[in-house]
Amino acid sequence: MRIEKWGYVFDLIINEAWKYQFLTYPNPAVGAAVIVKNQIFTGVHKKAGEPHAEVHALWEAYRAFHDAPELYTSKEIHEYLKKHHNGFFNDANVYVTLEPCAHEGKTPSCAYLLKELKPKSVSIGWPDPIKGHGGGVEILKNSGIDVKILNDKRCFHLIEPFIKWQNRFVFYKLALTMNGAITGGYISSDESLDWVHNIRDKIDLLVIGGNTVRIDRPTLDARRVNGKAPDVLIYSKNDGIERDIPLFNVKNRKVFIEDSLEKLEDYKFIMIEGGERLYNEIKHMVDWKVFIVSPKFANRFNFRSEDEFEILHTNQSSDLIVFGR
Amino acid sequence: MRIEKWGYVFDLIINEAWKYQFLTYPNPAVGAAVIVKNQIFTGVHKKAGEPHAEVHALWEAYRAFHDAPELYTSKEIHEYLKKHHNGFFNDANVYVTLEPCAHEGKTPSCAYLLKELKPKSVSIGWPDPIKGHGGGVEILKNSGIDVKILNDKRCFHLIEPFIKWQNRFVFYKLALTMNGAITGGYISSDESLDWVHNIRDKIDLLVIGGNTVRIDRPTLDARRVNGKAPDVLIYSKNDGIERDIPLFNVKNRKVFIEDSLEKLEDYKFIMIEGGERLYNEIKHMVDWKVFIVSPKFANRFNFRSEDEFEILHTNQSSDLIVFGR
Ligand SMILES: [Zn+2]
Ligand SMILES: [Zn+2]
Repeated sequence: MRIEKWGYVFDLIINEAWKYQFLTYPNPAVGAAVIVKNQIFTGVHKKAGEPHAEVHALWEAYRAFHDAPELYTSKEIHEYLKKHHNGFFNDANVYVTLEPCAHEGKTPSCAYLLKELKPKSVSIGWPDPIKGHGGGVEILKNSGIDVKILNDKRCFHLIEPFIKWQNRFVFYKLALTMNGAITGGYISSDESLDWVHNIRDKIDLLVIGGNTVRIDRPTLDARRVNGKAPDVLIYSKNDGIERDIPLFNVKNRKVFIEDSLEKLEDYKFIMIEGGERLYNEIKHMVDWKVFIVSPKFANRFNFRSEDEFEILHTNQSSDLIVFGR
Repeated sequence: MRIEKWGYVFDLIINEAWKYQFLTYPNPAVGAAVIVKNQIFTGVHKKAGEPHAEVHALWEAYRAFHDAPELYTSKEIHEYLKKHHNGFFNDANVYVTLEPCAHEGKTPSCAYLLKELKPKSVSIGWPDPIKGHGGGVEILKNSGIDVKILNDKRCFHLIEPFIKWQNRFVFYKLALTMNGAITGGYISSDESLDWVHNIRDKIDLLVIGGNTVRIDRPTLDARRVNGKAPDVLIYSKNDGIERDIPLFNVKNRKVFIEDSLEKLEDYKFIMIEGGERLYNEIKHMVDWKVFIVSPKFANRFNFRSEDEFEILHTNQSSDLIVFGR
C-alpha cells in the first residue's frame, strides 16, 4: 500500500475545469471525478445555476449503470440520487478540486449529498477559501468518509479569479500569432472567437484603448453566443471618437470615454482588450494575462514589450489559450 | 448503460505519453492506464529497452495493493506478475494508446502478459501500424478479454514519428518568446534546455545553418544529460567556418559542412535547429515543427515568416513545448 495515486486524477479534472475558467462567474471553476466499478467519470461546473462538478460526475457514473430519467437541475439530481443510490457509491472514490459546498444556496449542498451517498473516500484539491463557507470537510468526516485534503497549488490557481471576484478580478486578453503578430482579432479561430464572446457575456466591464476603437471600429458584444454585451470603458486621453462606431449602438450597455481607470472600481469582473500601448501601460496592474496564440506566423506588426509571467494553464483547441500571471 | 466513458482516460494517458515524445526512439511513445479497486494507475514508455507503458501501469497498480520487491526490467516484472497476480486484475479495465505488442523482442510481449492477467477489458487507442507486427488484439480476444479499438486520431499523432522512423522523420525546433523574439537559445528555461539535450541524445543528425554557427559558436552536444552528441550537418553555401568553434571538438561525432541537404538521406531521426532564413527555406520539407515558447516578451529581433500549421499537442512546464505539423 505504498503508493497514493490521486495525482493522475487531478491532472485530468484540473484540465477539464480550466475549459470553463471565467465562464462559471461568479462561481469558482471546479472539476470532479468519480471512480466506481473500475470506471472513471468526470464532471465540471460550467455555469452559475447549473449543477456543481461533483454532481455532474456522480450523475454520469450513476447513469452509466442504471436506467434513470433525464434530469438537468441540481435539485432534481440531488433528490433522485439520494432516493435511488442504493449503496451504489459505497466503494467509489471521489475527487474534487475544491471542498464540496456545505450550504444550501441556488443549488443544494454537495457535502450533504455525498454524506448520503457515502463513497469510500473523497479527495479534495483545495479547501473552500471563502470566510463563512467551508464546513464540507467536517460533514464528510463526521459521516465516516475517508477525506484527504491535498492542498494542490494547481487547484488554488483554478479558483484565484473566484477569490478575487469577491472584490475585483482584472485580466488582459491579447490575440497573437506564434511570432507575436497582432492583427485586431482576425487571427483567431472560430472556436477562439466563440470563447471570447462567451467571456464577454460574463464580464461586467470591457476596457479598450481609444486607438483600437478608432482603427478597428468594433462592436464588442457577445452576438456569436447570443450573450449580453458588457459595459465598455474606452480609455483615451481625448474623446474624438465617432459615435457611429458599432459599439455605441448595442442595447443595455453603458459606454464611458475617460482618461482614467477609476471606473474599474465600480466593477468586479473586468477584461482589457487592447494593443501594445495599453498593455505596456497597465501590464503590472492586471491580475492575469490571457493570450490566444494562433498556430501561424505572419509578417506583420509584432507586439513590442518587455515582460515576463508564469504560465498557470494552457487550453489547447485549434489555438492555444494561455493563462498567465 | 448508455455512456462509454473511456474518453477521459485517454485524455490523461495521451498527455502522459507526450511527455516522452521523441525520447522513446526508435520505439513509439505510448501511454497506458489500469483502473482496479476503483483507483487509476498510469504508465508511459520512457526509453527503448525499458518497460512498455502497460507494464508500468500494471506494476504500479499491483504494488499499490501488494508487498512486492523492487523490480526494474521488463523481464523481471512480466515474470513476477504472471506468477503472483492471483486474479488481482480480473475486474480491472486497461487502457493503452497503442495495440499491445505481440512479439517477444528486447522486452517480452505485453499481449501475452495481459492474456495471463486477464483483465475485464482492454481499450486500445490505435492498432499497431507496422507490417508484420500486430496480432495483439487477436491474442487478447482469443483469451476472452473484452477488447475495444477506438481509432482515436490523437493516438495516431502520438506514434507518427515512430511510423516515419521506419524511413526518416525530420523536425524543426525553434525557441521563441511569446512575441516571437529569438535569441539563440538563452530564452528557454533550464527544464526546456534539459529537454533539448535529451532530444539531442536521441537524434542521429542535427542540421544547423552556417550563420547560426558563426554567430552562436555552439557546442551542440547533450552534456546537460550526459548524453551522446549527434552528428552535425552545417548547411552553408560556403565553408569559412572557424574550426575552433566548440562543436568541432566533441568526441564520436561527424561534422559535415555542405551546401545541400542530401546527407539527410543517410539518417533516420533528424532535428533542425536554425534561424529565420533556414526555417523559411525548408519549412515545407519538415514533418513536424516544435516550438519552445517562453512566457516572456522581449524587445528584440522578431522571427519573420508566413506559415501556418496544426497544433498536435502542447506540453506545459515553465515553458510551452508546442508540437505542430
Ligand atoms: Zn456543490
Ligand atoms: Zn509491449
